[in-house]
Amino acid sequence: MANGLNKNIFQVLIVVKDVQKSARQFADTFGLDVPPAVILDPEEIAHAKYRGKPTRTRAKVIPFMNMGGIDVEMIEPDEHPSIWREFLDTKGEGVSHLGIWVPDMSEAVGYLAGKGVAIGHQASFVGGSYSIMDMRGRMGVDLMLKHQD
Amino acid sequence: MANGLNKNIFQVLIVVKDVQKSARQFADTFGLDVPPAVILDPEEIAHAKYRGKPTRTRAKVIPFMNMGGIDVEMIEPDEHPSIWREFLDTKGEGVSHLGIWVPDMSEAVGYLAGKGVAIGHQASFVGGSYSIMDMRGRMGVDLMLKHQD
Repeated sequence: MANGLNKNIFQVLIVVKDVQKSARQFADTFGLDVPPAVILDPEEIAHAKYRGKPTRTRAKVIPFMNMGGIDVEMIEPDEHPSIWREFLDTKGEGVSHLGIWVPDMSEAVGYLAGKGVAIGHQASFVGGSYSIMDMRGRMGVDLMLKHQD
Repeated sequence: MANGLNKNIFQVLIVVKDVQKSARQFADTFGLDVPPAVILDPEEIAHAKYRGKPTRTRAKVIPFMNMGGIDVEMIEPDEHPSIWREFLDTKGEGVSHLGIWVPDMSEAVGYLAGKGVAIGHQASFVGGSYSIMDMRGRMGVDLMLKHQD
């Protein structure tokens, strides 16, 4: 933990075109209930940035389908710039990031910046924030750092 | 479990071009040791099939990097047909499947077949077998069923 990271992946995020449809099919496969969709917070709360530039994206998310040691989340990007829109447009549907909780966002982002890793997307929510680190070129998938205040 | 499936995802598989390089970068990020690479079993043990047709693929794998509730594995396809070769050629590097253990392979495969899901790739190993179910169209990512005899 000296570098601000840890090994506890708690989330797998899947980018899809139609989150209601894909989550229903996922849930049907495993016999789960589909949690209600949520829309990401508006600009004045999220202060979202995609590759350093402010964006008004409000993607639709099906959160927290617990699958044992991890949660599977699904996200449907909207028309505004986002790391998820970029992923869908360039790679199609698929897993865009693995997520860990971090106790100190600055330390974790700084540690990865020291390795040449940039922030692909970042935003706040009520009670915390997340930074999606552009690690596809290093390990085939991005890493989301999530922090609770 | 009545359908032969369960909710315990234990594995995330990442397809990469150079498994030694990507695993080293992954391990370096998190401060892990890189496990030794293994080559998939030869034809006479694996009896591998890609979309129903026998294949002699012997992909290179870095197995079992434990990340809390899940293992991250990385795989480098070889030149023979495989679901991983297909993934790399069509989508580039990325997460190709999530994996669960199943107690009864026939029951689990049969349950998914009843939903119109085909086997994308299957093989045996000493002590067990796996079937990678073609679920990208349903949930954005494939599902591997793994069975220990």
